[in-house]
Amino acid sequence: MKIIKGGITAPQGFLAAGIPSGIKKSGKKDLALIYSEVTASAAGLFTSNKVKAAPIIVSQDHISSGKARAIIANAGCANACTGHKGIEDAKQMAFAAASMLNVPPEQILVASTGTISKPLPMDNILGGMRSLGKKLSKAGSADAADAILTTDLKRKEIAVQIMINKKPVRIGGIAKGSGMIHPDLVPPRSKYALKYGFGITPGHATMFCFITTDAEVKSPALGRMLKKAADASFNMITVDKDTSTNDCVFALANGMSKCGRMKRKDEAVFYSALEEVCKQLAKEIARDGEGATKLIEVRVEGAKSVADAAEISKSVAGSNLVKTAMFGQDPNFGRIMAAIGYSKAEIDPNRVNLFIGEHEVVRDGRVVNFNDVALKNYMKKDQIVIMAEIGLGKGAATAWGCDLTYDYVKINAKYTT
Amino acid sequence: MKIIKGGITAPQGFLAAGIPSGIKKSGKKDLALIYSEVTASAAGLFTSNKVKAAPIIVSQDHISSGKARAIIANAGCANACTGHKGIEDAKQMAFAAASMLNVPPEQILVASTGTISKPLPMDNILGGMRSLGKKLSKAGSADAADAILTTDLKRKEIAVQIMINKKPVRIGGIAKGSGMIHPDLVPPRSKYALKYGFGITPGHATMFCFITTDAEVKSPALGRMLKKAADASFNMITVDKDTSTNDCVFALANGMSKCGRMKRKDEAVFYSALEEVCKQLAKEIARDGEGATKLIEVRVEGAKSVADAAEISKSVAGSNLVKTAMFGQDPNFGRIMAAIGYSKAEIDPNRVNLFIGEHEVVRDGRVVNFNDVALKNYMKKDQIVIMAEIGLGKGAATAWGCDLTYDYVKINAKYTT
Repeated sequence: MKIIKGGITAPQGFLAAGIPSGIKKSGKKDLALIYSEVTASAAGLFTSNKVKAAPIIVSQDHISSGKARAIIANAGCANACTGHKGIEDAKQMAFAAASMLNVPPEQILVASTGTISKPLPMDNILGGMRSLGKKLSKAGSADAADAILTTDLKRKEIAVQIMINKKPVRIGGIAKGSGMIHPDLVPPRSKYALKYGFGITPGHATMFCFITTDAEVKSPALGRMLKKAADASFNMITVDKDTSTNDCVFALANGMSKCGRMKRKDEAVFYSALEEVCKQLAKEIARDGEGATKLIEVRVEGAKSVADAAEISKSVAGSNLVKTAMFGQDPNFGRIMAAIGYSKAEIDPNRVNLFIGEHEVVRDGRVVNFNDVALKNYMKKDQIVIMAEIGLGKGAATAWGCDLTYDYVKINAKYTT
Repeated sequence: MKIIKGGITAPQGFLAAGIPSGIKKSGKKDLALIYSEVTASAAGLFTSNKVKAAPIIVSQDHISSGKARAIIANAGCANACTGHKGIEDAKQMAFAAASMLNVPPEQILVASTGTISKPLPMDNILGGMRSLGKKLSKAGSADAADAILTTDLKRKEIAVQIMINKKPVRIGGIAKGSGMIHPDLVPPRSKYALKYGFGITPGHATMFCFITTDAEVKSPALGRMLKKAADASFNMITVDKDTSTNDCVFALANGMSKCGRMKRKDEAVFYSALEEVCKQLAKEIARDGEGATKLIEVRVEGAKSVADAAEISKSVAGSNLVKTAMFGQDPNFGRIMAAIGYSKAEIDPNRVNLFIGEHEVVRDGRVVNFNDVALKNYMKKDQIVIMAEIGLGKGAATAWGCDLTYDYVKINAKYTT
């Protein structure tokens, strides 16, 4: 696997664009389109929040066919709090993209993020659609990546290449994150979608990840692999323990690499690359969490199960007290131990070993002598690794988070509905 | 029921004291003693955190007899990270109090809170014991209440009086809180206590509540009522979603009111007063959360069950995004709806009504017109009430929290292990 340039347009047959349509008051790009030249297998994961935004409901419906041609997404307005009109607007947004691209509306996936209490500015979206279509190009990934950002400070974009049946196969991805980040992504269930109609979104940050590939994968296999990859990446990040109403991950596989049907071995290679794409983007989201100055990586080994390891690592990564300690460059292992102890996982504190970076600070549940100066120096880094050995089994997992800073409070206390 | 003066020494036969023993560098009071002139029925609740501090282990053991004569507590050092020595020190602290008071050591309950990585300063504790004993008085409640504080800004103390069999019966209580507050208090289990030996505490804030009463109650009934009252009070507050390793609640009932054995009706009167004492102290803890400028009360009605209502209300009260919005005086109902939606409880967003103060902001899951100016004025208050009607049943619960402020970050980023 090698990292390549081009983001979501690196795979064959994908074009993208991003333009300012006037939704964001800043005049920045706010409307993104990703297009496949041929019908692609499609898979999606959606927030488990029972309050779901209108575009989530519409995309859950559209993706049920397992096919898609394009993703249309906007930032700056969440299309929320508008009741049935929100659903109709999301449908119309898909319909306008479908008309412009001359494809069935059900093959368009929609996503929105931004402020609430206002109807989706359809004039901007419909007015921008034609020029968005004209901008579609092989060089459009960065523009699309920029157009989905909200409070994010950095563009999140990646592409990789692998070889399958001696043919180059590419996977590209773009993402957004920042605040209200505690994804719990699950496959769509139409019953669920119907039951939990239009929701109110916080109109705030949310996580999106849009993945393209020219691999040949059928949608059930793509869906299974996407869920597994998300469980090791997006579902393992947290910025503030607030699970958004708008989180979604879409993957489109158009087969244009002509790599042919993948064998089991090939699927393993493909999955590994897909997971890496998801992990890189997930870490970028955590690192760019609102107000963050540090990426915190929490590795857990030796838990009774993988689920227990995931529980422990997310508990530590999400702890406000651990996060403020990290901001203060304080290796406060007591708070880490407390967060391990209140997770739902089974632990025996007398068996826990804890490392901050290379520095062992706790062995068998007790403080050990460590190099205080070296540890304090380590705490100055912009990426901190916490590692816990639980000593009860073979379950391992890694979670990512960030520190809790004055700027997080500032950004979110000043945000206006 | 009427509020009376005197705190934990308002009930007959209780004396208290609090002195500076030199544990706190500030020279403030740090050693507290509460004493009953006769053997009292005792009940206790302890943190569910699997990493437990040494005094928790010792008190879980001591309370198993259902009898106690005194509570000895210190602030400034958590007696943690010292392995078996921590247990021995906690036992010795109880033993010293028992010797001085001439009662069995098993009838002494111990509690510690403060910094970690250091052994309990036994010289201060043992050295202070005699003068602590000499200070025991009917006027000592406030001193004891002060001696258990850490980052708390305010003393937490209350007493009430009810009539049972035409005799006045009193209940008094003192408490501490501030940070690492997300209590999940459960009755002691000796198996649990043995399995989870000495733990590492965060050496930080923790919640304590010590209750005295001159009612005549046997310990099993006292334990049942205390758990029920805690479930409606301490287990419904959150400051930072971090459940401490040192949380404990003790209740001592010495029967000295001579009110006689309580009938069912009397128990209801007694329970009601006990719950009120716990609720008042719990609210004081939430209001005095680290860095807090506001008390946030989240009432939930119409949930499918009481457990669901509790789940929803704690989810909203604990949301970082709701808490920062409250600090910013922003009635961000989208964030409230998101926190309702990601709670584990069953909800149908299309049935949810939401009020901030008197102002209805969401009806049937949709924004309604509200008086923007009046709502903004309401948000300036130092106590905000959020009320959600879920529309699925009869479950009701109330949780309390506080806003998330720059000062919370400051206090916890500057705290040193």
